[in-house]
Amino acid sequence: MDSVSNLLGAIEDVGRDATRGGYSRPVFSNAELDLRSWFEQEATRRGLEVETDRNGILWAWWDTGSERSDSSRDGALVTGSHLDSVPGGGAFDGPLGVASALAAVDVLKQRGVQPQRALAVTVFPEEEGSRFGVACLGSRLLTGGIDPDAARNLRDPDGVSFAEAARANGLDPAHLGKDDDALRRIGDFVELHVEQGRGLIDLDSPFAIGTSVIGHGRWKLSITGQGNHAGTTLMADRADPMVAAAQVILAIRKTAAATPEARATVGRVQPIPGGTNVIASRVDLWIDVRHPDDAVTASLVESIHGQAQKAAAFEGCAAALTRESVSGTVNFDGELQRQLQLAIPGAPGLPTGAGHDAGILAAHVPSAMLYVRNPTGISHSPEEHVEDDDADAGAVALADVLERLL
Amino acid sequence: MDSVSNLLGAIEDVGRDATRGGYSRPVFSNAELDLRSWFEQEATRRGLEVETDRNGILWAWWDTGSERSDSSRDGALVTGSHLDSVPGGGAFDGPLGVASALAAVDVLKQRGVQPQRALAVTVFPEEEGSRFGVACLGSRLLTGGIDPDAARNLRDPDGVSFAEAARANGLDPAHLGKDDDALRRIGDFVELHVEQGRGLIDLDSPFAIGTSVIGHGRWKLSITGQGNHAGTTLMADRADPMVAAAQVILAIRKTAAATPEARATVGRVQPIPGGTNVIASRVDLWIDVRHPDDAVTASLVESIHGQAQKAAAFEGCAAALTRESVSGTVNFDGELQRQLQLAIPGAPGLPTGAGHDAGILAAHVPSAMLYVRNPTGISHSPEEHVEDDDADAGAVALADVLERLL
Repeated sequence: MDSVSNLLGAIEDVGRDATRGGYSRPVFSNAELDLRSWFEQEATRRGLEVETDRNGILWAWWDTGSERSDSSRDGALVTGSHLDSVPGGGAFDGPLGVASALAAVDVLKQRGVQPQRALAVTVFPEEEGSRFGVACLGSRLLTGGIDPDAARNLRDPDGVSFAEAARANGLDPAHLGKDDDALRRIGDFVELHVEQGRGLIDLDSPFAIGTSVIGHGRWKLSITGQGNHAGTTLMADRADPMVAAAQVILAIRKTAAATPEARATVGRVQPIPGGTNVIASRVDLWIDVRHPDDAVTASLVESIHGQAQKAAAFEGCAAALTRESVSGTVNFDGELQRQLQLAIPGAPGLPTGAGHDAGILAAHVPSAMLYVRNPTGISHSPEEHVEDDDADAGAVALADVLERLL
Repeated sequence: MDSVSNLLGAIEDVGRDATRGGYSRPVFSNAELDLRSWFEQEATRRGLEVETDRNGILWAWWDTGSERSDSSRDGALVTGSHLDSVPGGGAFDGPLGVASALAAVDVLKQRGVQPQRALAVTVFPEEEGSRFGVACLGSRLLTGGIDPDAARNLRDPDGVSFAEAARANGLDPAHLGKDDDALRRIGDFVELHVEQGRGLIDLDSPFAIGTSVIGHGRWKLSITGQGNHAGTTLMADRADPMVAAAQVILAIRKTAAATPEARATVGRVQPIPGGTNVIASRVDLWIDVRHPDDAVTASLVESIHGQAQKAAAFEGCAAALTRESVSGTVNFDGELQRQLQLAIPGAPGLPTGAGHDAGILAAHVPSAMLYVRNPTGISHSPEEHVEDDDADAGAVALADVLERLL
């Protein structure tokens, strides 16, 4: 088997972000396209047949020995992850799952495994939602979890629509959306991913089996005030949306901290126009809220919305909240989890606060996850890390799982 | 005379900002370069001789009838303003002063005025500081108010240095800095500018004579925390610089509101990396502070700095404050103000909270300002406005002033 660190070594210079540190690899950027090419080469080198479906998902097929037919790939065993990153993200979030899948194919071939059903390695686009704002956009399109019109109209920070970006990358925007043929091909889905918290440090294990993904969603809050000159506008005459935004950020922290198991974050803020000597006319901020109980998530957001309206009104501003995406808490398929436990005995179970394509697919096909230890416990940051030995152990564990399921 | 609205009509489509509304015309952008070309054409059409000095300031000369010599432009009467804008700014902040100067030249020519000393119309670069962060950069360079090395190393948001931008626009970065020859040419400086507050509404006058510019400065505050995943990092485990930044924004509002005549603004905030599902690792924010008493400005900034360090430490973050530019309160030349009052009797006097190149020049040469009424009282915003009649009245008032001073 090619070691996972060797595989990742080939892409360690792709999409480095000199300003933020780490990597910025938004979907359909030059960096992400380079990673897709790398994947196609690595898959082809292993004898896999690569195709791109109408939602931009890459599939690399290892067919069974029997003759190919329209249905010979139906019910296949599918594994994979994503190659896009958050701005200034780590090297492992996404690529580790893709590289480990390729390494696992090596292991299965070395073991002389002959697949009894087809096996595919997949790459999902826009898992992070860092360019078009909706996380797991590829798997949502595949499963019909987002209206294709809504998806086509998503815009990146430069105003490019997802339809335009898709067309520029060889996809027909009219054909985006639920793909029953592709979905029928997934018999079981297994995603390996770097752990993004401290769970595996605390469990002292190189890998774990996913039990659940806690519900999460993204909302955009726009606070509108009165843009004006920073020098000539007296403090008493201001309707400054930045002041209201600051109140909201503190209210979010306070509300989430007071709610056990809740996480709520403002990581992106955009004052408009954004000049130093200008009172902003509008501040947009994005709120990420997560909780294992979907009802609590909803009431958290309601509370935040109410506090935002109050803070805005107090400042003479107005606040409008828009939902960008919401995913309920997902419990992974019990029988598939049992099969993973049999394949890699002793691996602990682990819930996660991070969203994944496997969480989207779980509502449609039996899905499972494997997490690999991250000794820093830090993710979405250049400090995310995986030790080489853990990465290779993860790939072998994935091979063990795939071999049992094939 | 060409009406001021006709002159401004020719540039009403240059640098429109579809996202923010209004105009974005940063120095050396295509938009600002188009405006410079427009100025050169309009000046040339009036028989003025246009030159660019080594700091990128445009000078359009109306020489006296006597023979040109090395010193025949020394002690000239100089008027002008700037063409760059804040992001999403109005149509008048800067261009009104330039267009009115051109219109005033028309009036003087129609009156058959023969200048007894040379007259120049000037355009200063980067008055807003919206690209390189230092307001009045052109006049600061001219007067030695900024170290040329510091100026060369200023960077725009894309990482382009001022030296690079200057070179790309035909300037030699090695020759940036104090220009005694150019300074010697300014006998008196008069800048006409749109009023940026409600002063002239309250005074019920189409124009006013500037009395003072209150001191102002810009500081950058960087708050560094621990970047991490928004879903996997428990609220209790966070060192989130966005939360500390929100505390600081509220502290700034409270501190300024409690200090009579103070203005303090955060109009620009930059979380890094800036992803929705990412706890920021750093938040940069820019603070604009102004007060008529420079000692109060200094103590306000000291207080803000102390509160920022406290808020950052409480969140497990660190805060670092950097001064970007500071200008003390300027009282315009008393004798020159008296000459303006004689030229346009009945015009009220008006202090301003907005910075101007005339405020920088005032420490070196007798300088004066004329303000034209802005019926919205709003500036640095698309809502900034000047009625056509007021603009023409302003241009005639400027002509009256120039005629008296020539």
